[in-house]
Amino acid sequence: MAPIEGERLGRTERAVAELKSRLGSRVSTETAALEEHSRDESHHRPALPDAVVACTGIDDIVAALKTCHTHGVPVIPFGAGTGLEGGVIPIQGGITLDLAAMNRILRVGVEDLDVTVEAGVTLSQLNARLGGEGLFFPVDPGSDPTLGGMVSTRASGTNAVRYGTMRENTLGLTVVLANGDVLKTGGRARKSAAGYDLTRLFVGSEGTLAVIATATLRVWGLPEEVAAAVCSLADLHQAVSAVIEMIQRGIPLARIELLDDVMVDAVNRFSQLEYPVCPTLFLEFHGGRHGVAEQVDEVTAIVQAHRGQLEWTTSPADRKRLWQARHHALYAAKALRPGASTWATDVCVPISALATCISQTKADIERSGVLAPIVGHVGDGNFHLTFVVFPDDIAEMAAATGVHDRLVARALAMDGTCTGEHGVGLGKMSFLESEHGRGVDVMRQLKAALDPKGILNPGKVLVQPRGAEES
Amino acid sequence: MAPIEGERLGRTERAVAELKSRLGSRVSTETAALEEHSRDESHHRPALPDAVVACTGIDDIVAALKTCHTHGVPVIPFGAGTGLEGGVIPIQGGITLDLAAMNRILRVGVEDLDVTVEAGVTLSQLNARLGGEGLFFPVDPGSDPTLGGMVSTRASGTNAVRYGTMRENTLGLTVVLANGDVLKTGGRARKSAAGYDLTRLFVGSEGTLAVIATATLRVWGLPEEVAAAVCSLADLHQAVSAVIEMIQRGIPLARIELLDDVMVDAVNRFSQLEYPVCPTLFLEFHGGRHGVAEQVDEVTAIVQAHRGQLEWTTSPADRKRLWQARHHALYAAKALRPGASTWATDVCVPISALATCISQTKADIERSGVLAPIVGHVGDGNFHLTFVVFPDDIAEMAAATGVHDRLVARALAMDGTCTGEHGVGLGKMSFLESEHGRGVDVMRQLKAALDPKGILNPGKVLVQPRGAEES
Repeated sequence: MAPIEGERLGRTERAVAELKSRLGSRVSTETAALEEHSRDESHHRPALPDAVVACTGIDDIVAALKTCHTHGVPVIPFGAGTGLEGGVIPIQGGITLDLAAMNRILRVGVEDLDVTVEAGVTLSQLNARLGGEGLFFPVDPGSDPTLGGMVSTRASGTNAVRYGTMRENTLGLTVVLANGDVLKTGGRARKSAAGYDLTRLFVGSEGTLAVIATATLRVWGLPEEVAAAVCSLADLHQAVSAVIEMIQRGIPLARIELLDDVMVDAVNRFSQLEYPVCPTLFLEFHGGRHGVAEQVDEVTAIVQAHRGQLEWTTSPADRKRLWQARHHALYAAKALRPGASTWATDVCVPISALATCISQTKADIERSGVLAPIVGHVGDGNFHLTFVVFPDDIAEMAAATGVHDRLVARALAMDGTCTGEHGVGLGKMSFLESEHGRGVDVMRQLKAALDPKGILNPGKVLVQPRGAEES
Repeated sequence: MAPIEGERLGRTERAVAELKSRLGSRVSTETAALEEHSRDESHHRPALPDAVVACTGIDDIVAALKTCHTHGVPVIPFGAGTGLEGGVIPIQGGITLDLAAMNRILRVGVEDLDVTVEAGVTLSQLNARLGGEGLFFPVDPGSDPTLGGMVSTRASGTNAVRYGTMRENTLGLTVVLANGDVLKTGGRARKSAAGYDLTRLFVGSEGTLAVIATATLRVWGLPEEVAAAVCSLADLHQAVSAVIEMIQRGIPLARIELLDDVMVDAVNRFSQLEYPVCPTLFLEFHGGRHGVAEQVDEVTAIVQAHRGQLEWTTSPADRKRLWQARHHALYAAKALRPGASTWATDVCVPISALATCISQTKADIERSGVLAPIVGHVGDGNFHLTFVVFPDDIAEMAAATGVHDRLVARALAMDGTCTGEHGVGLGKMSFLESEHGRGVDVMRQLKAALDPKGILNPGKVLVQPRGAEES
């Protein structure tokens, strides 16, 4: 082992020296910089990169990749560090490319409802700019990630039921390939049948196939009228079957969020609210004034038929309070046990299986004695557990791991997926084979074709096949 | 050349003999069968396959691919033969897999709004079945293709502006790889962040990466209320700028079709209608009763502000007449010159460039003296020319080719695409390099990884790089 590690360090040292001579002070090996790039918001164990390059433009990415490709050194793209599955943790060391300074909004196409942004532009920065034009970008994961990070993880969030995920809202990309070549995919046409869908190949590839430099995204007009509603239901089955009916009736709801009783309690405490402690739907309606009123009427009838209560509002202040409370759910969960950490995970199942999947999961949580409130983007069949744990408590972590692994197995048995929106990163790698079978071999073939030296975010997404470990 | 051709025939003969012994009478070398599979609805020159396998299930596809892989013989999937760019023409001979008998609807998920179908199910067959459940499949290319064919070409059509294309409406696939391995991609969850997007890689790959056996598709609830409208506008710029305003205002129109004056005249003659002969929009509105009324009011105001006339209707008979006239546009164009053939082509541009692109194209058509009415799914920036030509008239075909090539160049210069929905097939191969640059090399890498022997629909989509011709 020692000679291999020595050889690795030699390669890395040569790459860092070369990069310092090319990029000067933008390359840092200071401890503070390394530590800042050793973790994301997940429970996964941090690991230090060997150096951090603060990229100011695509030329820096190209330079870094050419150098790292020559020397066979890992490259890890880093945006805002808000990931939940350890996707940016440099578990094999290497050079982290910090893209936060690539934060220019390059073009806002008001007529075409599209924008082109550098990878480091944050969601809040983009929406601040778009608001002035009467536009918004709807994909809304709850935190404030970079758009590059959102493309990389195929991010999603509360609005996806109406507006789609990053898969549907990414029109084109500029990426840098492993060897430093620049590739433009897609374009500004709304649709194309011209060849293989390279854009979608890079969306969700978590930095393992290329580094994203810019993205052209679809944006949307701000709706004329917005209303929100809170629905309290007697049990989970009633809540989910009400949602199924809303979807089937084609009511174009913008947001359909479910909170279980434990999460409602946490949110009440954290955000000083007084919702009844029971399964609760947070809804949002977008449209013209009459259309929204019609949607609210239809939804009210459905909720009442499921013996629930609905309160609705068009007041911006009320809506802001509601969605802030929803977006603070992670902190609200954490505050239930002072000093604890959170471990957020997500799965997605066909909506017909959702009530059963959530009920069985809740029963498992109770049996296992862990604290794990549930929230979900239930219009998509997607839900989250947030384990509130003390990571040093070995028994508790084992219990949480058990609940987690059974959750994934349950979702896969229901023809669902091991992650609806957080990505594979480190935390879901072991489940990819069960989910995709032979597909994982095809993914490995694609990885080998595009990154033959395996330098792009190594050790993420795909487990190396046996016999292919670093030699 | 002769020894190479002899070697090819020897390989093919061995493959056909082997398939006949495995699949019996499902393998045909009758002239009628070969001729039936030598063409699609395009202007491209037919070519005969060496044999046709009438596949009755995925096992037949597997058997055919194993045999053809062993012997290095081309395999061409064939659905309904409604393609417009020659995608199914066996230009290098080989074995055509006719999938029409794989026409079972395997599952209708009413709660989940999804279906699983075999590749040979036709669009009309699927919608006949879904209608009974209050559902429909919105992707609507105008002809009656198979769903497998629609997946292969990333098909689209009149409803895409509201409901998306095959890219957005395909949830998962079962495909057979070049070597006969079966691969399941995606699943039934509405969204997933679990690994590379293999589903989207096969959607639009035109039979060059795998053969599609089954598809799981998203379906939609039939809208409560449907209205349609015909808007007559003074010129193309007014028509397109009205559309831009509708899109920007977020009016959720289901269909936004543009016909130029020449096409309106053709449609009037063919379908016995009396629309004013000027640039015309056909619109469709889906929603609740009040929501649709609100949409119609908003659109009426926009059209009037652009000095146009709008007539609307909710009568099913009127709507049917309208959309039949639209779907018969190709035949209407053809009827303008008795005995002529049609050559339909499409491009897609950012909507801000659409009016300029169409105007310049119309001017070019007039200068060139060809007959080529225009229709378009303008909500997406997608439009079609239908050349009405006599293919034996060399001068006329040269003039049409000039208009065609300049149309594509114009679309690409506007950051558009050489095809929005017809696919590359044979007709757009020469433009792929201009559109995607370095991306074509990446496509070739993917093709080489998944089909190293190059047996899957060879000679389509990707021009072989120099030096890689059959040796």
